[in-house]
Amino acid sequence: MSLSVFSDPASVAVVGASADPAKWGYWIARGALRGAHRREVHLVNAKGAVIEGVQSARSLSELPSAPELVVLTAPARTIPAVIDEALALGVKGFLGITAHIDAANGEAGLERRLAERIRRAGARIVGPNCLGLYDAGSELELAWGTFVPGSIAIVSQSGQLGLELAGLAAHAGLGVSRFVSIGNQVDVTAAELLEDLISHETTRTVVLYLENFGAGRELAAVMARLRQAGKHVIVLTVGASDAGRAAARSHTGAMTAATDVVAAACRAAGAAFVETPAQAIDLAHLLIDGPLPAGDRVAIVSDSGGQGAIAADTLSRHRLTVPALSEGTRAAVAALLPEGAGTANPIDLAGAGEQDLATYARLVDVLLGSGEVDTVVLSGYFGCYGADTPSLVDRELQVADAIAASAARHGRPVIVHSMSHDSQAVRRLRSRAVPTLFTIDAVARSLGIAAELARSAPADPARLAAPAAPLGDTGKALPYLAGRDLLAKAGLSYPRAIAVWTPEEAGTVARSMTGPFVLKAGWLEHKTELGGVAVGLPDADAVRAALADMISRLGEGDYVLEEMDTRTGAVELIVGARRDPAFGPVVLVGLGGVTAELYRDVALALAPVDVAEARRLLESLAGLPLLTGFRGRPAVDVDAVAESVVAVSRLIAEDGRVLECEVNPLRVGPDGAIAVDALVVAAAGDQPDW
Amino acid sequence: MSLSVFSDPASVAVVGASADPAKWGYWIARGALRGAHRREVHLVNAKGAVIEGVQSARSLSELPSAPELVVLTAPARTIPAVIDEALALGVKGFLGITAHIDAANGEAGLERRLAERIRRAGARIVGPNCLGLYDAGSELELAWGTFVPGSIAIVSQSGQLGLELAGLAAHAGLGVSRFVSIGNQVDVTAAELLEDLISHETTRTVVLYLENFGAGRELAAVMARLRQAGKHVIVLTVGASDAGRAAARSHTGAMTAATDVVAAACRAAGAAFVETPAQAIDLAHLLIDGPLPAGDRVAIVSDSGGQGAIAADTLSRHRLTVPALSEGTRAAVAALLPEGAGTANPIDLAGAGEQDLATYARLVDVLLGSGEVDTVVLSGYFGCYGADTPSLVDRELQVADAIAASAARHGRPVIVHSMSHDSQAVRRLRSRAVPTLFTIDAVARSLGIAAELARSAPADPARLAAPAAPLGDTGKALPYLAGRDLLAKAGLSYPRAIAVWTPEEAGTVARSMTGPFVLKAGWLEHKTELGGVAVGLPDADAVRAALADMISRLGEGDYVLEEMDTRTGAVELIVGARRDPAFGPVVLVGLGGVTAELYRDVALALAPVDVAEARRLLESLAGLPLLTGFRGRPAVDVDAVAESVVAVSRLIAEDGRVLECEVNPLRVGPDGAIAVDALVVAAAGDQPDW
Repeated sequence: MSLSVFSDPASVAVVGASADPAKWGYWIARGALRGAHRREVHLVNAKGAVIEGVQSARSLSELPSAPELVVLTAPARTIPAVIDEALALGVKGFLGITAHIDAANGEAGLERRLAERIRRAGARIVGPNCLGLYDAGSELELAWGTFVPGSIAIVSQSGQLGLELAGLAAHAGLGVSRFVSIGNQVDVTAAELLEDLISHETTRTVVLYLENFGAGRELAAVMARLRQAGKHVIVLTVGASDAGRAAARSHTGAMTAATDVVAAACRAAGAAFVETPAQAIDLAHLLIDGPLPAGDRVAIVSDSGGQGAIAADTLSRHRLTVPALSEGTRAAVAALLPEGAGTANPIDLAGAGEQDLATYARLVDVLLGSGEVDTVVLSGYFGCYGADTPSLVDRELQVADAIAASAARHGRPVIVHSMSHDSQAVRRLRSRAVPTLFTIDAVARSLGIAAELARSAPADPARLAAPAAPLGDTGKALPYLAGRDLLAKAGLSYPRAIAVWTPEEAGTVARSMTGPFVLKAGWLEHKTELGGVAVGLPDADAVRAALADMISRLGEGDYVLEEMDTRTGAVELIVGARRDPAFGPVVLVGLGGVTAELYRDVALALAPVDVAEARRLLESLAGLPLLTGFRGRPAVDVDAVAESVVAVSRLIAEDGRVLECEVNPLRVGPDGAIAVDALVVAAAGDQPDW
Repeated sequence: MSLSVFSDPASVAVVGASADPAKWGYWIARGALRGAHRREVHLVNAKGAVIEGVQSARSLSELPSAPELVVLTAPARTIPAVIDEALALGVKGFLGITAHIDAANGEAGLERRLAERIRRAGARIVGPNCLGLYDAGSELELAWGTFVPGSIAIVSQSGQLGLELAGLAAHAGLGVSRFVSIGNQVDVTAAELLEDLISHETTRTVVLYLENFGAGRELAAVMARLRQAGKHVIVLTVGASDAGRAAARSHTGAMTAATDVVAAACRAAGAAFVETPAQAIDLAHLLIDGPLPAGDRVAIVSDSGGQGAIAADTLSRHRLTVPALSEGTRAAVAALLPEGAGTANPIDLAGAGEQDLATYARLVDVLLGSGEVDTVVLSGYFGCYGADTPSLVDRELQVADAIAASAARHGRPVIVHSMSHDSQAVRRLRSRAVPTLFTIDAVARSLGIAAELARSAPADPARLAAPAAPLGDTGKALPYLAGRDLLAKAGLSYPRAIAVWTPEEAGTVARSMTGPFVLKAGWLEHKTELGGVAVGLPDADAVRAALADMISRLGEGDYVLEEMDTRTGAVELIVGARRDPAFGPVVLVGLGGVTAELYRDVALALAPVDVAEARRLLESLAGLPLLTGFRGRPAVDVDAVAESVVAVSRLIAEDGRVLECEVNPLRVGPDGAIAVDALVVAAAGDQPDW
C-alpha cells in the first residue's frame, strides 16, 4: 500500500492542536498551517481554541469533511477514541506523536492493537511516540523543529537525533527533502519508508538512524535498491561499546560488536556506515554532489604550505594517498606557478592565487586531467577572497564556476576545504556540486568513506536475501570429531584423525598414522583450557602415555588422535561464523589467536560470501603482509584461505542446524590451509545426521 | 631582551602602507590605525598617499619622531634600505611581512645578515615573510585577517594556518589574546615568543603550529614552564605521512614518524598534541575553561536516548569510559526522573527536562557529587529551549548558571554538547566556564585528550634539558659482541657468549657452556637476513657443524657462540633508542618483531626515562595484556622490562658515541628479561673504548 498519505495528503487534521508555544501541539499546528495553500488543514482542540488565527474544531466529527491524514498529538488517554472516530470517518493515515499510550491507558500492548485496528480498516500509522514528519516538496510540515529544504532524506528512530541531523545539515548549508521520525514503528517500518524514497525525486541521499534493525536483510536489500536508483544511504547506529558481546561462546562472537555487523551489512548493500551525526552530514556533502572518487589518490592544492601539509597528513590518516606526480604533470603545474615554486604534491600555490585567482581553476583542471589522481582537494583561503576584499567577489565566483565546470567535465570530484564557513563563493561552489566543507578533518573523513564506498559495487539486492533460518535459538557444542566432519564436508582441510578410547588402542592406532601427533579430549568444549590437548607427541609410546595421563585427570571419553601439522612458519588465522539477531549469518576472518584478539584485526561480512568477497576481507586486514610475504617470509596460499572463508560462510548460510562455528586456528603455509581445530554450536534438539 | 616592543609598542610605523584594499599594506595600515588612540601610528607610502583619511609620509625620516616598531610591508628590494634608515633612527623592533627578500635582492643569506645587523643595533625582528601580529589587550592589530578578542594565543609558523585557527576559534565562540605569525624566524624564535606568553595575563591557552622544532628540548622546557604557570599549550605539526623514516637503520627508526617524536615531547612537557586545527580549537574550549578531568569516567545526561547512546559510543572510541553507577547514585537519579525511567549511564531524561528545566542542573549536581565519575557530559537539546520557545529564555539561562555553579563547586568539568551552535544559553554556558561544543565528536575527542593530559603531571622543565650531544652525525654498526657489551654495561641482561673463530675451537668452547646454543656472525649488521645466525644448536657437534657451514658461506670472521634463551612462552619485545634531529635522544618500546611492525604497537618517549615513565609507556601498549597475563598465560616480569627501557634510554642520553641502539628481541618471562640481540650504531671515527 502506498505511503503517499504521509508525504502529500490532500487534507490533514491536527488533533491536540494548541495555542501554547511551549507545546508540541502548537508547533505541529503552526507547521501544518504553512501548507494550507496546498491542502485542507484542520485543527482540533478540545476547547475549540483559536490557534494562529484559525478556529479549531472540538472533534474530528465536527469537521466539514474527513481529513486524509490525522496527526495525533492529543493526551495519550484520548488517543484510542480519536482513532476509532477517525477510522469511522474514513481517515487513511495517522501520524502518532503522542507517547506512552499503553501506560496512560493502563493497557499493555494497546499500541499494537490500535495499529492492528488501523491496518484492518485499510489505513496506516507512523509512530506513535515520534517527533513527526516533513516533506519539502509538498510543503508538509508536521514536526517539531525547523527545516531547510534540500535533498537529504532523514529517517530516524530517535526523533531528536533526526533533528540534530537536520540542524547540522542546515548549519553546513545543506537541506532536507523529507524527515520521518519513525517512533515505535507499530505499523510503518523503516524499510517501508526507505522503499518509498526510491521514487522520491527531491531525495538524493538518505541518512538513516536505527537502533534496532529488525529484519536486517530486508532493510539491506532496500538500501541496495536505493543505491541502484542512484541514491546513497548513510547509516548511523549505536552499540559499539556494547558489553553484551562478551557473552558469546566463540571468539568470533566476542570479537564483533553490534555495530560491526551493521557496518558489514552496509558494505554488502553499498551503503555508507558512519559513527556520528556530524560524520553523516559531512559525508552527505560528498554523496549528494557526487561522483564518487574512482580510487584513493588525491592531489592537494593549497595557497599555504602549512595547510597543504596538514591536509596531506590528515588524508593519509583516512587511508587516502597523496601520490607523487609524473614529470609531465609537474611540468604542467610548474607552468602555472611562480618561477622556482615547488611542484610536489601537496602543491603550494606560492602566491599564484593572489597573482591571478584563475590559477586555482587551471591547477585543478591540470590535475583532474592528468589521470594520476582520483580527487583534487583544494584547502585554504579560497572562498574568502570576496568576503575579505569586496572587489574580488565577482572574480572569485567566476573561478568557482570554472572549478565546478572542470570537475563536471572530468567526472572526478573536487572537494574544497575553505576557511570561510559561509560566503558567496562557498555557496556558489556548493550549488555547482562542489562539496565545500569548513574543516580538513571533515574533508578527509568523508573522502575516506566515499573512496571505500566506491570500491564496493552496488550490490544485487536479491543476493542479500535471508539465508537458511536457524533451527533453534539455543545450542550446544558438537563433539570435536562431529564438528570436524561437518566443517570438512563444507570444504575445510583437516589432518587425519581417529577416535581412541584406551592407551593401548591409541598406541596401535598411532603406528598406522604419521607422527607427530596431537591428542584431544574431543567431548570438551574448552579442551585446551581444561588440559585436554597434548601436542607434539612424537610416537606411539608418547601417545599411549599422554592418553593414560589424560584419562587419569579427565576420565574416560571420546578422545581423538590427530596427525599434527608441523609446518614451521605457517600463519595462524581464525575463521568463524555466527548468527546476528537482525542480519542473520555473518562470517569473520582474522589473524589468529592472541593477535587477533588483542588488536581486533578481524574482518566481517554477511554470509555467504564468494571468493572475491573473501579476498576483499583478507585484504582489509592490517596483518595482510603476513599472508603476502613480509620481511623475507614466503607468501602463503591466500586462495586456500579465501576458499576456507567461503566454505565456513556457506555452511552457516545453508545449514539451519549451525548456530556458530569456528576454526581457530586455520594454519596456512605456501602449500595450503589446514584446519587444526573445530567448534560447531548446533541447535539443541534433534540432530539426526550427526 | 624583552619582546614588549612586539606586544605594546609606544609608536608604530607601517612602511609600505597602501590605499588598495586588495593589498596587505592596506590591511596592516587599517589595523594599525585602530590602535591610534593608544599609541602613535604612522603610515609610510612612497607616493605619500592618503590612506583611510590619514596622510602618509614618504619615508621614515620624514616622521616627526622615530617609531618604536616598524612594520615592513614595502617591496622586497627596498627592505635593506628601510632597515638601515630605521636603525639609524633608533627603531627597536621590526615586523617583517614582506617575503622573498633574498631573491628580490639577488643575494642569498641577506635576510640572515639583516637580522644580524638588527641585533647588533640592539633591536629585534619578527619574520620576515610573516602574516603579522595581533594583541587583543593592547589593541595592536598588525596582521592580515580579523580577530575576535579572547584568551587563546596563537603562535604559528604558517601565517595562514594561524588565521585558520583564529577563524575556527571565532566560529566556535572563542577569541584570541595574541597572534604571532613567526615567518622565517631569522631572529625572534617560537621559543622566545612562548616564553613571553608566560606573563601575558590575557592568555590562558596557547596554540602552537610549528613545522621545524629547531632546539626542541628548549621549546619543550618552555612549554613545561607555561603549564607550571597554569597555561596549557596545544601543539600542532606535520610529518605524520613522512616517508623519510623508511631510511632509518633500525626498526626503532622505521617505526616512528616525525610527529610521534613531537607527541612524545608534548607528553614530557605536559602539553597537548593534536592533529588538525579544528582539534586544537575544540580542545581549547576545555583547556581554557578547566579544570582537567581527574580520570576517564564520564556520566552522560541526555534528553534523547539516541543521542545518549551515540555519546556513549563516541566517548568510548576516545578511551573514555561510561561506567555503571552505584545503587545509591541510581536512586538519587531516579528521584529526579519520571517514575519507571531508566537510571543506567547514559542517563535519559525521559521528558524530565520538559517537565522542569532545573532537572538538568539537579542531575548534573548529583552526578558530580557522586564521586563515581570525573566528568559529566550533557548532550542534546539543552541550549535550544530558549531559542525555540522565547518564554523559556530566562529559565534556561538560570539553569545554565546552576550547571556552571555546580561544576565550579565540585571542581569537576561539565561539558555540553548542544544542538544549538550559538544561542543565549550556549553563550552563557561558555561565559561561565562550561565548555559547550556543537558536535559530540568534538566533545569526545577533546575530552579524550584532556583526560590523557591530566594523567601527565606538569613536567619539571629542568628535566627536559638536552642530554649528551651526539659525537657525530654518521655512524657505523658495532660488531655484535661490542654492542652487547655496551648494552650489558648499561644494565641489560645477556646470556653467556664467547667469541669463536674455528669449528674445532667452537666445539671446545661449547663444552664449557650450557646448550642449546646460538651461533652468530657477529660482524654482520643484518646477520639474520644474510644467513649469519643458527639457533637451537643442541651440543658441541652441532655447533662445530654449524660454524663450518657458516664459514663456507660467509667466510672467516668474528663469530659468537651464545647460550640460547629456551624459555617457552616468553614474550618478545623491542626496545630501542635513536636521536631525533630536533628533540635529541628518544627511546621506544613495543611488542616484538612482526607484530610491532605491522600493528605499530610501540610507545615513544624523550630519553632518558625513569622507571615510572617506562611503566607508563608499557601501559600504553595495546599488547599490554601479553605482559600482564592473558588467556591463562602467566604475567611476565614487567619490572625487568621497565628497567631495560630505562637502561637503553640512559645509554643514549648519556653516551654521545651512541647514535642508535636496539635490542630486538628482548625476551621476557615471569623470571626476568633477557636480551638476545644487540644493534648499536656509533658515531664514526675515534672509538677508543670499544
